[in-house]
Amino acid sequence: MSAGESRVLAAAVELFSQRGFHGTSTRALSEQAGMGLASMYHYFPSKYDMLVRILDDVMTGLFSACQSALVRASDDPADRLDAIVRAHCDFHTYRQKESFITNTEMRALTETDRRQHIAARDRHQRMFDAVVLDGVERGAFLTPYPVEASRAIVTMTTAVANWFRPKGPLSPAEVADRYAILALAQVEAVPPARTRAGRPDEKKEA
Amino acid sequence: MSAGESRVLAAAVELFSQRGFHGTSTRALSEQAGMGLASMYHYFPSKYDMLVRILDDVMTGLFSACQSALVRASDDPADRLDAIVRAHCDFHTYRQKESFITNTEMRALTETDRRQHIAARDRHQRMFDAVVLDGVERGAFLTPYPVEASRAIVTMTTAVANWFRPKGPLSPAEVADRYAILALAQVEAVPPARTRAGRPDEKKEA
Repeated sequence: MSAGESRVLAAAVELFSQRGFHGTSTRALSEQAGMGLASMYHYFPSKYDMLVRILDDVMTGLFSACQSALVRASDDPADRLDAIVRAHCDFHTYRQKESFITNTEMRALTETDRRQHIAARDRHQRMFDAVVLDGVERGAFLTPYPVEASRAIVTMTTAVANWFRPKGPLSPAEVADRYAILALAQVEAVPPARTRAGRPDEKKEA
Repeated sequence: MSAGESRVLAAAVELFSQRGFHGTSTRALSEQAGMGLASMYHYFPSKYDMLVRILDDVMTGLFSACQSALVRASDDPADRLDAIVRAHCDFHTYRQKESFITNTEMRALTETDRRQHIAARDRHQRMFDAVVLDGVERGAFLTPYPVEASRAIVTMTTAVANWFRPKGPLSPAEVADRYAILALAQVEAVPPARTRAGRPDEKKEA
């Protein structure tokens, strides 16, 4: 990505997250990016192209973060769920603005782009489904509703981007700790998430 | 509500849920409502006023549905959580379109209206928090993170409006059954949601 391109994208992320896609003018974008309209259009032919790019980057980044987490995790179902939930959660706190835009601006996509975006989300959801279903098959998770539990886990962790505030009260690592435990409870992991993770207050993780 | 007003609102619910608020023209609304623009403006001075009304109605309806459910429930914490989750879930399946609009169009609100809407959501969330915290205090729920668990429950059940399809595969009652069990698992209810609710397949509820 060129420096100019990333300046425009940073401006778009900032303004779309503050004012929404429809509430952001191209003039405001060019001011925020510190370049003229013509230069900006050189990188992105329209405001809409910026939005599509942000959403694409989020889905790609999220997918690969969660995949890497699974590659590094052990074969234990609870470890795998813990790892994928932390990766998903971290993405939504560290890249909160982009994630928030992705959560709130799907409506602004054209029919075709929306369909593609939903396909990417479905693919992501299936990665979680596979982890949960594997845990159920192996007797590590007792939930009678693995598919719904998996969707609930993705939904609640995705929503972190809607309320997380970088200035606190919780750090990204603390949020990830809690959501990992909530996810294990949601699938009724054996032993319970609580005893497995130790007393939450004693836990310290980077 | 007059017949004309409710015709306009029904048209707005239909079109906003299909095309989004920004994607819906006032002309399309007046055609859908089967009345001229002037008559439509008599009921709602603008498209925006229809949106605000839909969101207000959702938050009011949701709050009172959940409150009534709590009034009817026993004093047992698990029963109370079961009741409030079912009420919240039913609202999002039976009034799916309005709920979906509420989930996806908050961005279209002005700053002031958004603040009011968020306050209404917070008030609703606190009703769930109270149920979960009470269960934890009384030893019925073991979750170490009652506030996060409560938010997770509201988030996942609110998202039902985003994927539920009236034609199946699950009926509203089946969705509510499953989310009630997921919610009890999420708070680590004692005894576990599974054993408490019996085998899900044997359960039949209207």
